Amino acid sequence: MSQRFIVIIAGGRGERFWPQSRAARPKHLLPVVGTKPLLAQTLARARGLAPAKNIFVITGATQARAVAEVCAPFRLPAGNIVAEPVGRDTAAAVGLAAALVGARDPRGVFAVLPADHVIRDTRAYTADLKAAFAAAEAAPVMATIGITPTEPATGFGYIQRVGPWKKFGARQVFRVRRFVEKPALAIAKKYLAAGDYVWNAGMFFWGVPVVEAALARHAPELHAGLAPVRAALARGRPLAPVLRKIYPTLPKISVDYALLEKSDNVVVLPSTFDWDDVGAWPAVVKHCAPDAQGNVTRGRALVEQGKGNLVFAEGGHLVAVLGADELIVVHTPDATLVCPKSRAQEIKALLKRVEAEKDGAKWL
Amino acid sequence: MSQRFIVIIAGGRGERFWPQSRAARPKHLLPVVGTKPLLAQTLARARGLAPAKNIFVITGATQARAVAEVCAPFRLPAGNIVAEPVGRDTAAAVGLAAALVGARDPRGVFAVLPADHVIRDTRAYTADLKAAFAAAEAAPVMATIGITPTEPATGFGYIQRVGPWKKFGARQVFRVRRFVEKPALAIAKKYLAAGDYVWNAGMFFWGVPVVEAALARHAPELHAGLAPVRAALARGRPLAPVLRKIYPTLPKISVDYALLEKSDNVVVLPSTFDWDDVGAWPAVVKHCAPDAQGNVTRGRALVEQGKGNLVFAEGGHLVAVLGADELIVVHTPDATLVCPKSRAQEIKALLKRVEAEKDGAKWL
Repeated sequence: MSQRFIVIIAGGRGERFWPQSRAARPKHLLPVVGTKPLLAQTLARARGLAPAKNIFVITGATQARAVAEVCAPFRLPAGNIVAEPVGRDTAAAVGLAAALVGARDPRGVFAVLPADHVIRDTRAYTADLKAAFAAAEAAPVMATIGITPTEPATGFGYIQRVGPWKKFGARQVFRVRRFVEKPALAIAKKYLAAGDYVWNAGMFFWGVPVVEAALARHAPELHAGLAPVRAALARGRPLAPVLRKIYPTLPKISVDYALLEKSDNVVVLPSTFDWDDVGAWPAVVKHCAPDAQGNVTRGRALVEQGKGNLVFAEGGHLVAVLGADELIVVHTPDATLVCPKSRAQEIKALLKRVEAEKDGAKWL
Repeated sequence: MSQRFIVIIAGGRGERFWPQSRAARPKHLLPVVGTKPLLAQTLARARGLAPAKNIFVITGATQARAVAEVCAPFRLPAGNIVAEPVGRDTAAAVGLAAALVGARDPRGVFAVLPADHVIRDTRAYTADLKAAFAAAEAAPVMATIGITPTEPATGFGYIQRVGPWKKFGARQVFRVRRFVEKPALAIAKKYLAAGDYVWNAGMFFWGVPVVEAALARHAPELHAGLAPVRAALARGRPLAPVLRKIYPTLPKISVDYALLEKSDNVVVLPSTFDWDDVGAWPAVVKHCAPDAQGNVTRGRALVEQGKGNLVFAEGGHLVAVLGADELIVVHTPDATLVCPKSRAQEIKALLKRVEAEKDGAKWL
């Protein structure tokens, strides 16, 4: 019988929660919600599904040390934390994951899970994921968990399901008709009303042979490019030098585009757990307890005559907001952001400006 | 012939430019405008009117050390910097000034000048002040310099002049009909239109005998209370222990109310120099060179997609403002203020909140 593995993708550039998040400390390394880094929360949930030796974390070189620190309490084997020398998008990471899992169990079934989502209902989560594993074990499919939409979000891709495929326990898994890119609002409203669309949250479940076959067929350049990785793993050789050599040559493409959209064996399980990808600062608010004026504060932060503000202060520094509404103010020891909630999506434009400053890279 | 003295009143609680200003570092100790503290700018102007040995600075105990540092380059005699152990408003400070000057020259004529005003046209300033000194030397009057109003300001008291009194060089000095408190806007507009009102900027010129007589008549309790100071100075005894003993017992009253409003020998010289009391953060803007979007920045501050902001950052800390307009953001090593320009006048309410915080006094 095949073993179950979990591969957590812990990447990101640390832009959306700047200045708390940085290139070397992206969102999943922060307690954006709760008291522990989101990666630690993800690892804790993963431990309900697989033993530590079967859990991998794929991360980036700049954040590898911080990731290792967060992973330490979970006692993953040293070789289970793998740093990509450069980011090559998710298809390369999934190919690397298949190679890592395949070296342990050529018939292994693995989940690919993002490191930085907020999920509170661990019981429903665990049950859903067990059903998704069972689906991937039952047939050579690419199983996904789609998030049941709660609003006409335009920030996510959607998955359209068609007829029911199989049931696993109480969970119904459906065949997938298509993956669609982030829609315009009018389209998103239609999807929500139609009822047969779910959000693509980047959660995939599949056997090593399924992934290898799909890569060989739909992404042959990537598959061939990863051959030295498979060879090094098979021979027990150190992986880092191989990755440093081949990674820059790999095509940069998302797994959705490279594999899922091109495959006809995709199935989806609509989620029954709560889920939030906490995409930017304003999304944090709904996970916090605001005061009577709707202000959310952390650290030595105070608001006088203002409402709806999010004010975070680190290191005992006082941040005082007077007479302002709906602002985000985030203070860290070397940088502070001030931004209306309504403009938080434009943080990338700001970071381009920061990068252009003299010695600006030190703040990224 | 009597000597000329200048007494600079360098007090204040450091509230209006918080968090840069603090109780121990009020506005006059900051380079709010220009590169040197306002007190240093005031001292530099004073040196055009009197020798260093004739310049006094009266300050408060909490800021005495910082004041002494700013005064050091001007080589005032040690005894010329006098710290009030507690603030007892301006009448007490003027009484103390009269005692200090009187001990050097019982017929001495002295100017009382605030430490924290911004004046750029030193030439016109010097000529105006020389004329005001001459007025105070020509007769037993209380001469004031009134600021020629440029707008119907509601933040200043006004002085109404009546017929001309005397000319000193090209400067006409007028008799004063009355002092009026800060007016409502409608009244201020009338004053501006009438043309015979000037702003009371707290600049007074008078001989020691005039002040002593006025104190004895209009503020006998204060005058009697200061007798130990005069005695200690006459006998060359240390002043500090005397001040510590008597100051808490002195009446707390402004010199305007205690003397000027009650005297019929007040004259006024309308100013010919530029003047700004820079009452709060928004007033700083007109002394700075804004960028094309009207943003004023100091230190490592940047604004992306915003206009009309004032953003100051100390100590190499980055303050980044995204998508916000007309904000004041002031970062210091231990505290940061975020406030719309339109609400800057309410900073005292904010500081009450800060004071109520745990260990809040450390930020005041």
